[in-house]
Amino acid sequence: MTVALDLTADPVELTAALVDVASVSGEEAELADAVELALREQAPHLELVRSGNAVLARTRLGRPSRVVLAGHLDTVPVEDNLPHRRTGSGPAALLHGRGSVDMKGGVAVMLHLAATTEAPNHDLTFVFYDCEEVDAARNGLGRIERELPEWLHGDLAIVCEPSNGVVEAGCQGSIRVELRATGKRAHTARAWMGSNAIHAMGEALRRLAEYQPRDVDIDGCTYREGLQAVRIAGGVAGNVVPDECVLTVNHRFAPDRSPELAEAHLREVFTGYQLTVVDLSPPAPPRLTTPAAKELVDASGGRPVAKLGWTDVARFAALGMPAVNFGPGDPTLSHTREEHVPVQQIRHCADVLRRFLA
Amino acid sequence: MTVALDLTADPVELTAALVDVASVSGEEAELADAVELALREQAPHLELVRSGNAVLARTRLGRPSRVVLAGHLDTVPVEDNLPHRRTGSGPAALLHGRGSVDMKGGVAVMLHLAATTEAPNHDLTFVFYDCEEVDAARNGLGRIERELPEWLHGDLAIVCEPSNGVVEAGCQGSIRVELRATGKRAHTARAWMGSNAIHAMGEALRRLAEYQPRDVDIDGCTYREGLQAVRIAGGVAGNVVPDECVLTVNHRFAPDRSPELAEAHLREVFTGYQLTVVDLSPPAPPRLTTPAAKELVDASGGRPVAKLGWTDVARFAALGMPAVNFGPGDPTLSHTREEHVPVQQIRHCADVLRRFLA
Repeated sequence: MTVALDLTADPVELTAALVDVASVSGEEAELADAVELALREQAPHLELVRSGNAVLARTRLGRPSRVVLAGHLDTVPVEDNLPHRRTGSGPAALLHGRGSVDMKGGVAVMLHLAATTEAPNHDLTFVFYDCEEVDAARNGLGRIERELPEWLHGDLAIVCEPSNGVVEAGCQGSIRVELRATGKRAHTARAWMGSNAIHAMGEALRRLAEYQPRDVDIDGCTYREGLQAVRIAGGVAGNVVPDECVLTVNHRFAPDRSPELAEAHLREVFTGYQLTVVDLSPPAPPRLTTPAAKELVDASGGRPVAKLGWTDVARFAALGMPAVNFGPGDPTLSHTREEHVPVQQIRHCADVLRRFLA
Repeated sequence: MTVALDLTADPVELTAALVDVASVSGEEAELADAVELALREQAPHLELVRSGNAVLARTRLGRPSRVVLAGHLDTVPVEDNLPHRRTGSGPAALLHGRGSVDMKGGVAVMLHLAATTEAPNHDLTFVFYDCEEVDAARNGLGRIERELPEWLHGDLAIVCEPSNGVVEAGCQGSIRVELRATGKRAHTARAWMGSNAIHAMGEALRRLAEYQPRDVDIDGCTYREGLQAVRIAGGVAGNVVPDECVLTVNHRFAPDRSPELAEAHLREVFTGYQLTVVDLSPPAPPRLTTPAAKELVDASGGRPVAKLGWTDVARFAALGMPAVNFGPGDPTLSHTREEHVPVQQIRHCADVLRRFLA
């Protein structure tokens, strides 16, 4: 039997109810059924579509602009942290449990607004999707982009991933490269006949240690770049001078640089090493000067900050839309066994979005 | 039927015959049978013992000193390099094939001397053993040391491994250590919250690159030390600041240092890193001032050189005997598909040892 969700109640209670329906990636059917049923019964003003374990709903009010709100239904695996539990009270009240932060608090806010905002000043599209926590190839938003592309169009995308209730704008790009040092094998008893590729990688590590990452300000948001070794491997045998060493480096770069410029920068930093790009995710500019984004920032009453990690915000940016992160919960608690969300942030996010849409 | 070997013929012909009896480690039975039969029939003056695929033979002449000659019967796997073939002529004549260098040339010299030297000025022990090219635990010399220890006693050990026909004295020690750098994990998008263990290993690589290995002279032999990274590994995931990096370093050290001093030296070089010893082979001093060793050097007519690699010479040194390497062939060709030995070196080694024993 499909779980009944009360979308008009306090979004905190709704978050607790959502947390208690386990929905590990690939197993979101029960929760998707509950979301679909609740929207069908409690938000009859919305056009509704089901796509696999994703549920899409939208208004057709003929407003001059459209805002897309997106959130994933799935979570990383449960770690003995279900059902939800609560601690503290008043402003210190916390709601614990798998998905409380990432991101059923945000989904609850979206569902609450879907049912209770019948006359928004923007047309609204709600996207509840599946498989965000697994390989990009399985990502439900990617499937929707391929199969129902018109459902993702709009003038602003708000991805309700945890952002501590602050508007996080754009996102940094990420490029991963492999640096290769080569040498010549020899027996370690006659090392001078060879050339040690691991030793040769020392200079690259020195450049990494001395590297000064940029802080880049765009639209009032500060992007803190980073350049980090994430893997190193080399070695043939315990008595052989190694002829190859591979260092994998991850560069997080601000949206003022294109992926091409970021790659060129790394080629400059690591002059003298063979460099191969193995992974590349483009950045998303904040674009907070666009009208709908400006309204949201005003409604939030706070200074927006830069999104540093890479999220599905970038998928919307790639579609040409301004896109921000805005949701309850501390993103650094995502995926931890101890994840918990301050209930006040859930209410705060619902209030901000209600103000924004009024 | 057991292969017939002519021990009294030219040791070059004997080398060719030995090469043509394949004897990859663990499959030495056919060759051991041939060696045993040949010694039994052509060297009846020797006391003979069979131990697995090893054959031991010795004189009992009551001489005041005893010389042990040792050589392994096994080879690394065949690489389409059998049967033997010959190229060149005169002083440039070469004998090619698996085992020609490592070490059937040396074994041929030993067999030839066993059959043709009936009145040596030292008592002689010949040790033809198995499984030298595989794990130390399977080494036939180790088994003989455990089961027939009196067969390894003497005043000088000559291991007839390839040494270009030059007396190579003692051998360097080898110590392998793991250096560990630790850090703190963090998402690479927020790298400043972590501490990168791979970056921290850069300083160790810098010390390796700047390290000046010693050249150490003992008994006229120069030992060239070495300090080489042989493996490096670190990394958690493509978007995580790694919290551990392990660097494996191999130090080859001259026999003037004990294993304890070598370890203390590495702890000094790599101050600041966790250091664990993972492998340790003691060095063997040349001891060329002992009477029998001095006689051999005189007979070889050449300047002895230091043995840089680690060989079973060190096993004899550990038994308290002076021990040297002396055999035909270039050791850097060992284990290569192209291994080949100058036939002149085979005859030279036989001549030197005949002079030494006369």
